[in-house]
Amino acid sequence: MSKMYRVAVCGATGAVGREMLKVLEQRDFPCSEVIPMASARSAGSKVEFRGEELTVVEMKDDSFAGIDIALFSAGGSPSKHFAPLAAKAGCVVVDNSSAWRMDPESPLVVPEVNPHDLDWHKGIIANPNCSTIQMVVALQPIHEKARIKRVIVSTYQAVSGTGHKAIAELENQVARLMNGQPVVADVYPHQIAFNCLPHIDVFLENGYTKEEMKMVNETVKIMGDETIKVSATCVRVPVFYGHSESVNIETEEKLSVEECRTILAAAPGVTVVDYPEKLAYPMAIDAAGEDDTFVGRIREDETCENALNMWIVSDNIRKGAALNTVQIAENLIERDLVRVP
Amino acid sequence: MSKMYRVAVCGATGAVGREMLKVLEQRDFPCSEVIPMASARSAGSKVEFRGEELTVVEMKDDSFAGIDIALFSAGGSPSKHFAPLAAKAGCVVVDNSSAWRMDPESPLVVPEVNPHDLDWHKGIIANPNCSTIQMVVALQPIHEKARIKRVIVSTYQAVSGTGHKAIAELENQVARLMNGQPVVADVYPHQIAFNCLPHIDVFLENGYTKEEMKMVNETVKIMGDETIKVSATCVRVPVFYGHSESVNIETEEKLSVEECRTILAAAPGVTVVDYPEKLAYPMAIDAAGEDDTFVGRIREDETCENALNMWIVSDNIRKGAALNTVQIAENLIERDLVRVP
Repeated sequence: MSKMYRVAVCGATGAVGREMLKVLEQRDFPCSEVIPMASARSAGSKVEFRGEELTVVEMKDDSFAGIDIALFSAGGSPSKHFAPLAAKAGCVVVDNSSAWRMDPESPLVVPEVNPHDLDWHKGIIANPNCSTIQMVVALQPIHEKARIKRVIVSTYQAVSGTGHKAIAELENQVARLMNGQPVVADVYPHQIAFNCLPHIDVFLENGYTKEEMKMVNETVKIMGDETIKVSATCVRVPVFYGHSESVNIETEEKLSVEECRTILAAAPGVTVVDYPEKLAYPMAIDAAGEDDTFVGRIREDETCENALNMWIVSDNIRKGAALNTVQIAENLIERDLVRVP
Repeated sequence: MSKMYRVAVCGATGAVGREMLKVLEQRDFPCSEVIPMASARSAGSKVEFRGEELTVVEMKDDSFAGIDIALFSAGGSPSKHFAPLAAKAGCVVVDNSSAWRMDPESPLVVPEVNPHDLDWHKGIIANPNCSTIQMVVALQPIHEKARIKRVIVSTYQAVSGTGHKAIAELENQVARLMNGQPVVADVYPHQIAFNCLPHIDVFLENGYTKEEMKMVNETVKIMGDETIKVSATCVRVPVFYGHSESVNIETEEKLSVEECRTILAAAPGVTVVDYPEKLAYPMAIDAAGEDDTFVGRIREDETCENALNMWIVSDNIRKGAALNTVQIAENLIERDLVRVP
C-alpha cells in the first residue's frame, strides 16, 4: 500500500482554503488525515471533507509536529510567521500567499511548467499569483517552440480573487443598484458592480501595481528565463469566478496560428477553444469549476513580424490557487520530495 | 442674428438618438427645428426636446427636403439607403453607422483630431466607432509629439454600445441570476452578466472581429497616417455605460510619463486622472454622462525602448457617438460647410 500523508490546510475557511479541501477530495489525494487550521478568529468553525464535518483548529507555533504537508492560504503575514516554523518541524509547506514567491530559497512552481524546481526545495514551495499561473501554462509550450521575447497582457480579473468578502460586496452592490439604493464600497476603494477598476493590490513607485509586477517577475522565475519581458495591466471586472486575459506574445521564431493551436492543444493543462465560426471562445462562466486553462481567439498580430494575440481564461480559485497548490503536493509525492532537507 | 438650422435626428428612439437630442439641447445647438425620424416601426412614438414632446416621423425617401443637417444613428442599412438621398436633397449627413466610414468619398472625423477633413466632404460625413474615437483623442497629441509606431489595445466595452436591448438584457440576466433563475441570452450569443465576451460584431476571415478591424483601419484614416499600426482585442464586459481601454503605445521618440501627462492635460477633450497615491484613475462609472475622454495609469512600458501603457475611458454613447456627431455638426457650422457641394 502506498504511503498516506497527514495534510494541514491553513486558512481553511477562506475561499481558496475551502476549494483546497474540495480539490483534495475530488482528486482522491493520499491523505490519512486532513487538519483544517485557521487564525483564532475562525477556529472552531466547521468545514466539510469526504462527507465529514471537521472542526477548524487554531494555527499555533507548535501546530505542525507530525504533519507531512501543509497547504497554506492564510495571507502573507501568517505565512511569513508560520511557514518557517512548519518547515522546521519537518512539514513541507506549499504556500499560496506572495510571501515566499520571490525568495531565492523557495521554488515558485506551476507543475506543467517547472516541476523540476521542486528538486531544490528547502521546505517551503511558493504557489504563484493566479493571473500568472494561467498565463505561463499557455506561454511555456509556445516558448519551447518559438522562444518568447515580449508579452503584453491586460487582465479581466474576477472578484473571487480577493476572497469571500469581495464576492459578497459585488452581490450586495448589484442588489442595491437594482433596487435604486446607493452603493457601499468596503472591500474595494470604488464601486465594482458594473464598473472596471484598473487597480489590483497596492501601487508601487514605478506606477505599476504589485499585481502587475507579480506577472512580470513571477513569469521570469517560473519559466527560468530572464530574457522574457512582460508588461501587464491588471483590471478587476464585475465577474465572480474566472480570470480572463488578453495576451500579445512576440516570439523569436515565426509561429503560425495553426502551429500555435496544435502546440497548445497538446500542452498539459490547456484546452483550446477557438471556433469563431461557432462563436466559441473561452469565457469566465465556462472556466469556473474547471481544472484547465482555456485558450482561444488565437490570431496573428499583423503589426509585428512574429507575434500572436490570444485570450486565456481559467478558474482563478482552482488552477489559479487551490488546484495548483494540490498539484504541487502531488508532484512532491511523485518525486519523493515530501521531506524537509 | 446667427443662422439657425433645421436638424433631423434619424433613429431618434435608439440609445444614441435619444442622447443626440439631449446633447443638442445641452449644447444649445443653433436649431430652428428638430425633426425626430425613425423607421416605420418606431414612427409615432414621442421623444423630448427642450421640454416639448415631439412625435417621431417615419423616415422616407423624400423626408430630407428643406432640412440642413441630418444626424443619423439608424443602423448600417437604413444609412446606406437614406444618407445619399438626404445629401442629394441638399442636406448634410453626419452618420454614426459603419456604412460610410471607410468610403474614400466620406471624411471620418473626430473634431479634436482631424476637423480639416470636413473641408472635402461631399454631403456625408462619417462618425467613427466608439472605441476608436476615445482612443484617437488620446493618441493624436502623443503622435504629434513623439510619432506613434504601434498600438496594442484591449477594450472593456459597455453593453450600451449595442443599444437599449442589450442594456435590458444585462439587467434581466442579473435579476434572474440574483433570483436563482436560468439566464436567457438573446442579444448576445452568451451570458454577459458576470462574464466577459471576447467578441464584438462579427468574425472576419483573419480571425479578428469587425470591431477590432474598425479600430485598426479607422485610426489610420482619422489620424491620416498609414504608418500607425494597431492591434486590437475587443471585449464586452458587464458594464452599462463607459468603455475602458488598456492601451500600449510605442513611439519613435522617447516620451516620459511626465511629458505624456503634460501633453494630454493640455489636449482638447482629454482629462488626465492619474493619481495612484489617491487611488484615482479613470473609471466607467465616473465617465458616464461626461463629455471628456479620461486618461490615467500612464506608465513606462519597461519591455520596450519607447513605449507607454495607459488606461483610457469615455462615455461610449456621448463622446463615442452622440456628442462626437453633434461636435462634427458644430464644426461644419463654424467652418461654413453646411451645404452639399
